[in-house]
Amino acid sequence: MDINQIAQMAGVSRATVSRYLNDGYVSQEKRAAIRRVIEKTGYVPSQHAKTLRTGKTNVVGIIIPKINSASVSRMVAGITPVLNAAGYQVLLANTDNNASREVDFLRFFSEKNQVDGVILIATVITDAHREAIAALPVPIVVLDQDVDCCSCVFQNDYEAMREVAGVALRTSRRPAYIGVFEDDVAVGQMRRRGFLDACAEAGVEVPERAMRIAQFTVDSGYEQAEALLEDYPELDGIVCATDAIAYGALTCLREYGHRVPEDVVVTGIDDSEISQIVTPTLTTVHHPYKTSGDAAAKLLVGFMTGEEYVPRKLKMGYEVMTRNSTR
Amino acid sequence: MDINQIAQMAGVSRATVSRYLNDGYVSQEKRAAIRRVIEKTGYVPSQHAKTLRTGKTNVVGIIIPKINSASVSRMVAGITPVLNAAGYQVLLANTDNNASREVDFLRFFSEKNQVDGVILIATVITDAHREAIAALPVPIVVLDQDVDCCSCVFQNDYEAMREVAGVALRTSRRPAYIGVFEDDVAVGQMRRRGFLDACAEAGVEVPERAMRIAQFTVDSGYEQAEALLEDYPELDGIVCATDAIAYGALTCLREYGHRVPEDVVVTGIDDSEISQIVTPTLTTVHHPYKTSGDAAAKLLVGFMTGEEYVPRKLKMGYEVMTRNSTR
Repeated sequence: MDINQIAQMAGVSRATVSRYLNDGYVSQEKRAAIRRVIEKTGYVPSQHAKTLRTGKTNVVGIIIPKINSASVSRMVAGITPVLNAAGYQVLLANTDNNASREVDFLRFFSEKNQVDGVILIATVITDAHREAIAALPVPIVVLDQDVDCCSCVFQNDYEAMREVAGVALRTSRRPAYIGVFEDDVAVGQMRRRGFLDACAEAGVEVPERAMRIAQFTVDSGYEQAEALLEDYPELDGIVCATDAIAYGALTCLREYGHRVPEDVVVTGIDDSEISQIVTPTLTTVHHPYKTSGDAAAKLLVGFMTGEEYVPRKLKMGYEVMTRNSTR
Repeated sequence: MDINQIAQMAGVSRATVSRYLNDGYVSQEKRAAIRRVIEKTGYVPSQHAKTLRTGKTNVVGIIIPKINSASVSRMVAGITPVLNAAGYQVLLANTDNNASREVDFLRFFSEKNQVDGVILIATVITDAHREAIAALPVPIVVLDQDVDCCSCVFQNDYEAMREVAGVALRTSRRPAYIGVFEDDVAVGQMRRRGFLDACAEAGVEVPERAMRIAQFTVDSGYEQAEALLEDYPELDGIVCATDAIAYGALTCLREYGHRVPEDVVVTGIDDSEISQIVTPTLTTVHHPYKTSGDAAAKLLVGFMTGEEYVPRKLKMGYEVMTRNSTR
């Protein structure tokens, strides 16, 4: 059964059936005739033919910074059901925290015309990103960074860090901080600023040697904690930009014989599954990653189905999870 | 600058330039003329035009069961550099442990003609999988399951479990087992059989109530360990099919006041990053996931670049990591 046979049986032209299938104008009478034939024959238009007719791929690309990440996984878990329910397949493009590969994939999706929309789970936004986003022929939503060049959904990193650092500062007077590189505005700059403002509010001074930069890994958290114990041995708290960094700090403190939380308090951000499994359990922040993925996908579906592309920004709430690594 | 201009400048036909660009036959004289023009003009054939000419997409699809998994992440980390170096972009299709979505993606990749090859990180292989694999118009390599329908690279799950269970059985006389569903041949059947054979060798009997099935999550490991403490309270060992399940078991044992390894020994399989961070550190197995990804990608590149498609099977070695959760 194909479109020509449908046309013949309904007594209309092939073009009319095509317009019917693609929601174009068809008179009420012909519309009824075509609907009767389609119902009788059980005809389902093939996806391939539909793509050729409509120029739509029914595919959405999600660019992700890494695959083995609790937060990324939760965002994708929020995105996927929304897109699937709207009839889109989802393909993931993994950049392994390499920002230039994000730009490559943006260009790849543009050039190949392979997708109807893009969600970029962003780490840094460079000029090359902005150019590639501007050149994208399909709608895009940026997730997890506050950007001006297009619609975005992001976490309240500043307030979240200020509040969880406040929990550490209940008992810590000589806190240290392990952050990430500042090109990442959300995790690098916003969380760092939240920590420093919390310290200022608490009347606590933080010397330069108490501030370290780590990668997004457990091992790197371990190394930076070790360096802190060397450079700032009087520390009584380690506030970490992420849970993974905090796991490294916890392991290091244990190996060097410091008790947590008695001698040193530790905090993270992410509320990853492991945060309730480590000893002691980790005080951290729950960001609604899954809900933010759901929200980004709903925005994108709106844009892909004809809603006017008016850029918008959505800042999510958060919850501090106070556990046994603080007092 | 396009192919017509190159042809004009070199004084040859458009078809000759096309053959030149696609490594077809071109006489030595014309070849030299075209090469001179290309060098002078700095002409780079557009990817899009190349796809149209060659029917190649230079994209490989990897179908993965979940994204937040240490083993999957390591396999992808092994696959990606090999494919990128060979000039392929990599797109990931995440199935969230839903086997029917694996089949959907196999069909999707076939129908859309979007990829030059597929790597399937497999959990179960059903008849629908075999049909979809047979219908695939491009080469495929299955990773992490031993299958007969196409080339595959897989771990030695049976021997690995037999050996790590042997470590538990050094002190455990009443071991329990938490496995996963048996549709997953590698993790479900092979590891279960390895455990039972290790017990038989050690002359240890395992009652039915000591055998449980969990999901691939920490929470599910916790629940099944809790059920074991109820049904088989005399247990002195919990052998787990994966690290994630073992983390749940460790947490449960701690909460119920059982000391590990003094009262109960625990083992996992995966050697995930967390296995060195939990208290006590976990005795587990290191599977060369990254290397197996590398191997699968190299096989696939061979098939995509014209090597004859003779199916082959590659079984990887492993290493037992003895840590503090056993004696």
